Amino acid sequence: MTEIVAQPLTAEAFAPYGDVLEIAGAPDKIINQGLCGRYHDRAALDFGPGGRAGISLFNAEPRSLPYRLEMVERHPEGSQAFVPMHLKPWLVVVAEPGDVPGPVHAFLAASGQGINFHRGTWHGVLTPLHEPGLFAVVDRIGDTANLEEHWLETPVIIGGPRF
Amino acid sequence: MTEIVAQPLTAEAFAPYGDVLEIAGAPDKIINQGLCGRYHDRAALDFGPGGRAGISLFNAEPRSLPYRLEMVERHPEGSQAFVPMHLKPWLVVVAEPGDVPGPVHAFLAASGQGINFHRGTWHGVLTPLHEPGLFAVVDRIGDTANLEEHWLETPVIIGGPRF
Repeated sequence: MTEIVAQPLTAEAFAPYGDVLEIAGAPDKIINQGLCGRYHDRAALDFGPGGRAGISLFNAEPRSLPYRLEMVERHPEGSQAFVPMHLKPWLVVVAEPGDVPGPVHAFLAASGQGINFHRGTWHGVLTPLHEPGLFAVVDRIGDTANLEEHWLETPVIIGGPRF
Repeated sequence: MTEIVAQPLTAEAFAPYGDVLEIAGAPDKIINQGLCGRYHDRAALDFGPGGRAGISLFNAEPRSLPYRLEMVERHPEGSQAFVPMHLKPWLVVVAEPGDVPGPVHAFLAASGQGINFHRGTWHGVLTPLHEPGLFAVVDRIGDTANLEEHWLETPVIIGGPRF
């Protein structure tokens, strides 16, 4: 059994795995007669030559910390964005790259933070920590399975602060 | 001055203008060992030959009802999805198609409802009704302006129930 602690989700810490979708800093553009800030094109979407972008909704059961991670997965043919449709914190899990997943890292997404996993990134399944576990998902629509699962030999227990 | 009342947002009523993104009904697929429902590929994304999908974040100032609509706009080269990153109701405004906008219709998006405007649909700018006015927007990234604005000769006052 390995134990790790979830860290705050920051763009810098998450950069090896994907993009953080958040409104930190100044907007790229002010639109709508000054009433809206646009944070422009914040995700590296990549759906390969045979895929296209789609928007799906995920409704996932909330988990709690400490969380027992037994499996990570990756999508070899496309990026995958998780956009919370709520303002609650949630858990993001990744593993370092390789034919088999490397060391696991966990991040606590704060209120208002979404993420986009870069194509092929090993990651845990969607893990809300509160009801409702409602997310918009922007990922690859295509004819292939686009999913590899890897069950860990040693589960990872992910702890974190109480919300 | 024209006065209209915002109606509940339903997939059927909104069909001429776009897609409603919501988890109504049974999921298309159960994933993640039974812990997540996937409502698959729910938006007709269309970014034309010269565009691509992007995810941006909008942070808009909340409005209140009655709301005075003075302008509608359209994006001739791409669809545009508004995904609330919160669980508050918000206002969706559209106008019937034409070289100039036709009659205006307004819908109250309930908690958990997003929308995708089909390419070229006349619509009002993003109008949250509560703080924070935080939305993920999936729209066309390209080199063209992709924006037409039309200022109404007669403003439309949009009323609705109090939240």
